[in-house]
Amino acid sequence: MTISALSALAQAAREAARLLASASPAAKNQALLGIAERLRSQREPLLLANQKDLEAAQAAGLPPAKLDRLRLNERILGDLVEGLRQIAAMPDPVGEIEGLQIRPNGLQVGRMRIPLGVIGFIYESRPNATVEASALSLKAGNAILLRGGKEAFHSNQALVRLMQEALQEADLPHQAIQLVPTTDRRAILEMCHLSGLLDLIIPRGGKELIELVQREARMPVLAHAEGVNHLFVDESADLEAAVRIALNGKTQRPSTCNSLEKVLVHQAIAPTFLPKLAQAMAEAGVELRGDERTRAIIPAKPAQEQDWRTEYLDLILAVKVVDSLEEALEHIARYGSRHTEVICTEHHAHALRFLREVDASLVLVNASPRFNDGFQLGLGAEIGISTSKLHAYGPMGVRELTTTKFVALGQGQVREG
Amino acid sequence: MTISALSALAQAAREAARLLASASPAAKNQALLGIAERLRSQREPLLLANQKDLEAAQAAGLPPAKLDRLRLNERILGDLVEGLRQIAAMPDPVGEIEGLQIRPNGLQVGRMRIPLGVIGFIYESRPNATVEASALSLKAGNAILLRGGKEAFHSNQALVRLMQEALQEADLPHQAIQLVPTTDRRAILEMCHLSGLLDLIIPRGGKELIELVQREARMPVLAHAEGVNHLFVDESADLEAAVRIALNGKTQRPSTCNSLEKVLVHQAIAPTFLPKLAQAMAEAGVELRGDERTRAIIPAKPAQEQDWRTEYLDLILAVKVVDSLEEALEHIARYGSRHTEVICTEHHAHALRFLREVDASLVLVNASPRFNDGFQLGLGAEIGISTSKLHAYGPMGVRELTTTKFVALGQGQVREG
Repeated sequence: MTISALSALAQAAREAARLLASASPAAKNQALLGIAERLRSQREPLLLANQKDLEAAQAAGLPPAKLDRLRLNERILGDLVEGLRQIAAMPDPVGEIEGLQIRPNGLQVGRMRIPLGVIGFIYESRPNATVEASALSLKAGNAILLRGGKEAFHSNQALVRLMQEALQEADLPHQAIQLVPTTDRRAILEMCHLSGLLDLIIPRGGKELIELVQREARMPVLAHAEGVNHLFVDESADLEAAVRIALNGKTQRPSTCNSLEKVLVHQAIAPTFLPKLAQAMAEAGVELRGDERTRAIIPAKPAQEQDWRTEYLDLILAVKVVDSLEEALEHIARYGSRHTEVICTEHHAHALRFLREVDASLVLVNASPRFNDGFQLGLGAEIGISTSKLHAYGPMGVRELTTTKFVALGQGQVREG
Repeated sequence: MTISALSALAQAAREAARLLASASPAAKNQALLGIAERLRSQREPLLLANQKDLEAAQAAGLPPAKLDRLRLNERILGDLVEGLRQIAAMPDPVGEIEGLQIRPNGLQVGRMRIPLGVIGFIYESRPNATVEASALSLKAGNAILLRGGKEAFHSNQALVRLMQEALQEADLPHQAIQLVPTTDRRAILEMCHLSGLLDLIIPRGGKELIELVQREARMPVLAHAEGVNHLFVDESADLEAAVRIALNGKTQRPSTCNSLEKVLVHQAIAPTFLPKLAQAMAEAGVELRGDERTRAIIPAKPAQEQDWRTEYLDLILAVKVVDSLEEALEHIARYGSRHTEVICTEHHAHALRFLREVDASLVLVNASPRFNDGFQLGLGAEIGISTSKLHAYGPMGVRELTTTKFVALGQGQVREG
């Protein structure tokens, strides 16, 4: 794949984006439902393509957890179909005018919601992301250039082919969804340098990929960083709820970025809370690492400085006793990764202060960090969770793939001063 | 100025930003009004510092237009004071919760508006920008690191000193507004590399400065690009209004980025409209450059291909006859700079289509492009006009210097699926 070939794809995407920006909601929804239909009717060739990827991955010695993420099956296809129907049923954001006001000179001024243009999406393994990202991008009126992982290449090709058919059937340009037809890593660098053609790059994958894209990209990047997520158990917390939330946060799906990694415990309740926590975690097979004050109350491996900074993505949890809400806030400001932070408290002022002062894409009171997810927070679906503060902070759904321009309606007004 | 010295300023700004994020609206407004008061009470030392800059600039042979931009006087100080009062009177955006909804599991989810953190502002000449940018940043709860032009250095030092006094009087950290204490151009590069310390860089100045920052910055950049702005005079336009708008757009303040640079005229009305336009422009001393069809109707210099791409910022206007709205839309898509675009029409469907399809930070119907300005559009004031589509597109006021995080209020909810 040469730069000129990739840039030709991006040029075609730009032209498609221009047409899509004024496409009717009906045509976009027809394409979304057409994709859903084809995921059913073309199930067999799709699973065959996926089988090819699975066999290659097995031969290459991929670990079982990674094979699992690669696999398409009836349940996953069913979830994708359901997701597509939900996205089709959502209101179309494009063309909506917000905050229309009449200025003293009679000029009517508002902000019209518009697509971003062309999105570059660089991601690893899971082939469902191919459909989810494309569907959100299409609903928002954008074109998308997909660069998936090499393990899912045949699955992605089959998925993109059927999505392009659905676009054509709805009289929309099939170049609105395109797959970079190579898994050469240089294609990532080339995408990063296509400024003027891509309006945005979203990297979703390991830390190394994200740092590479942030360093190289000449256009805005919405990065999805790691989650070093804390639960602070305040003096006044409902201790049963705190244990339940810690357990759900750590064990429901430990490999995800919205899992719990650290627990900070107020010293006043440490002697009663920590034994409950230790018992629940032991039953779930979770290894505890604690600071000295924790280890004076429950058995745990000694936590090192590095433990406070690490996203384990595994059944390991670091625990620290703190003197106060202030100390918890400071610890989170120093070690947190601005992803997901939780307080368990029954104290109104403490809840408000934590909500206000903690800088993270989602801050929760008395609920599991696992809720940091577009579907769970009511966005319908997500293309990723942004930990960049500009443009979007947190899960990104259809609305986060749009922007607004100002519009002004006059009757001949000119400026005086 | 060494990197470590600049990075120490930025570190201090980060700490100030953390305190400011939870400062009360009353304290921030007290500081804003304190700045206004000091612009009055310290007028004399301020004008003396400005005089020093003016003398140095004169000795260096700066052209009169640039000297004029550098000058502080009673009227400019009065406008700044009025602007500060308006910003103080605006509602405080920080802490506002948008779209609070209750999810099926009882979790209450919303988005809380929060400051961005630390803003790097790199700008040229006009010292009023020092106060305007600082005031907007402060109201939004951010810290700002200012890097002004070398011509305004003494004026900027005096302004920042009095702003810091006002912060201290309001018990706010004075490091929330800091001036980079050197005009060495290397400081710009160093600021671009302070990733992790600056959340955003806003470059405001010439094309060269903006391109340098976009290339070098390792954090998000909200660029303020040139305005290659069009007026399309449709077949059905009110021709008197179209002449008035063209004249206002071109001549009210030709050196600004929201001035008119090109007129596209529908062929059906070209024979009646062009003579009116030519007469008005001749009276205002504007040089016309036209395509062949224009020059068959009115006298004008021949326009070259380069004319369609050029931001003149001068009393020059390029004129082209087009066959249709479609041709106008295509011309704007090819040559426009996504800044400000105007249609004059009495045809409802054409107005709607132009509004919808033109990609620019402000699209107007029957009004002057000069309205692309934060104050004119109702934002109170502006720190710049973004032509980046991400985060903010168009004039940036207080709200555009904030972002939102998700907040979730639970009663012990955990995730099931």
